[in-house]
Amino acid sequence: MKTVGDIGEDGLIRRIVSLVPIGDGAGEKPGDDCSVVDSGGDRLLLLKTDALVGGVHYEKSADPEAVGWKAMARVFSDFAAMGGVGEKFMVTLALPGSTEIAWVERLYAGMGKCLQEFGATLAGGETCRVPEGSVAVISISAMGSVKRGCAVLRSGGSAGDHIWVTGSLGGSLSGKHLSFSPRVEEGRWLAEHAGVTAMMDLSDGLAKDLPRLAAASDCGFEIQRDAVPLNPGCTVDQALGDGEDFELLFTAPADATFENGWKAHFPELRITRIGVLVGSGEGGALSGGWDHFES
Amino acid sequence: MKTVGDIGEDGLIRRIVSLVPIGDGAGEKPGDDCSVVDSGGDRLLLLKTDALVGGVHYEKSADPEAVGWKAMARVFSDFAAMGGVGEKFMVTLALPGSTEIAWVERLYAGMGKCLQEFGATLAGGETCRVPEGSVAVISISAMGSVKRGCAVLRSGGSAGDHIWVTGSLGGSLSGKHLSFSPRVEEGRWLAEHAGVTAMMDLSDGLAKDLPRLAAASDCGFEIQRDAVPLNPGCTVDQALGDGEDFELLFTAPADATFENGWKAHFPELRITRIGVLVGSGEGGALSGGWDHFES
Repeated sequence: MKTVGDIGEDGLIRRIVSLVPIGDGAGEKPGDDCSVVDSGGDRLLLLKTDALVGGVHYEKSADPEAVGWKAMARVFSDFAAMGGVGEKFMVTLALPGSTEIAWVERLYAGMGKCLQEFGATLAGGETCRVPEGSVAVISISAMGSVKRGCAVLRSGGSAGDHIWVTGSLGGSLSGKHLSFSPRVEEGRWLAEHAGVTAMMDLSDGLAKDLPRLAAASDCGFEIQRDAVPLNPGCTVDQALGDGEDFELLFTAPADATFENGWKAHFPELRITRIGVLVGSGEGGALSGGWDHFES
Repeated sequence: MKTVGDIGEDGLIRRIVSLVPIGDGAGEKPGDDCSVVDSGGDRLLLLKTDALVGGVHYEKSADPEAVGWKAMARVFSDFAAMGGVGEKFMVTLALPGSTEIAWVERLYAGMGKCLQEFGATLAGGETCRVPEGSVAVISISAMGSVKRGCAVLRSGGSAGDHIWVTGSLGGSLSGKHLSFSPRVEEGRWLAEHAGVTAMMDLSDGLAKDLPRLAAASDCGFEIQRDAVPLNPGCTVDQALGDGEDFELLFTAPADATFENGWKAHFPELRITRIGVLVGSGEGGALSGGWDHFES
């Protein structure tokens, strides 16, 4: 019998979508950082669920406040990748009964800090017990919103669009993956002022995520390896494959002029053009990056 | 060091709420079946998160379609308990890589059946890997809505209100816990037509849940044990303590007249008056029921 380990996360998703009813609005199909729901108001609603697994997304010895920050910040990053903001968050904790209360309290303190920082609130939670020996699972779900007309999907890129990233990439495991700042204001600004055509956040590594964005836009891609902005001490391969950068990957028409505006608004965060979208079936390929079900 | 097993779920929640920002709208504080969010439209939004743990909420040998049904039906039941309906659902699966794809597909088929039955759609998901030996965790989050003015909280009961339950209780483990039908239409009807003052669904057993509803309403309670409607073959103690009945527990003023209307709309489902709310500190007590962190 085939297992989920055999087919990976993307393969699993392809099999699942035929089995459940899915709304037919733009952004309700799988493949974007959030699901977009039109409830008729000025703003579109965004929905997102995400999870951290003990020993996989954080070391068991990690500072629980940092883990709590990360759990929330990952979801803010997904809203940012759509040009939106997070508003109401829910937390499900599956924990062994032997988990120390102090650990859980520090976890929530970190979550609270992140919610406060980005102006959101907790709107529900669930705690349940897993047997001793099972890992902890921290599942975060949230509702956010985006200005009508400004939701940026992965699928809006066209051949000829330039490919950009915010910040610099690689080496997140040395600490940044626990303490990163989601690009909330940056994502919103790009959506509202820069004419970006497609956007996502870099969670599984550029090598995994760029092909997803290009495929969603029905394009290929070419990148200039030596243009990829590196974190200190990182190689290009690390920048492509380490994952958990939580920077924004976006595309914009070649003639878009947003660099001066960006510099004025975000003087401390670089943006770098790393390549170009090309026709479907053309361009290069990338290997590496992180799959949730590969060994 | 104290552990979460030492203080139980309610104790954990009390400690957590001071650590995170929480909205100050009615229904945003913990303690109700869903969180209520006023986004300004005709209907209020409802948010809910819930989880199933392998080996705890379902036997590992259980039919995965039934497990998928249950995972969704529990959440529909929570929306029903507020007088609302579920609309957009998200699924997070934490699974060992050795999980058979066929199992996951049947799980989703069961989820899909339940979504279809109650007119909702899937709006997102996340799959992640837990180490071999860890149990599976199925976390469901959802957004629903309720007619403005009709959201029923647990806190609206008053001394003198009668206490009612739908259906009959006890013995859910023999199968009903996997195949129950959430009281969606019933909850909405009660909220819109019966003048109910407080409502919740019975997930942890009447002995655990009624004291929660009474405390939220700042009341005590008296129940007539021999009035509790029993499932065939069940004792009163089982009806009080088994849990997972997923019937509705609600209160209504003593002079409310909804019984004939109920019978006309739901001829096949009994409702039973089992007691009365009394002043805070008065009345009886109940023991039994299910705590997610007690051994």
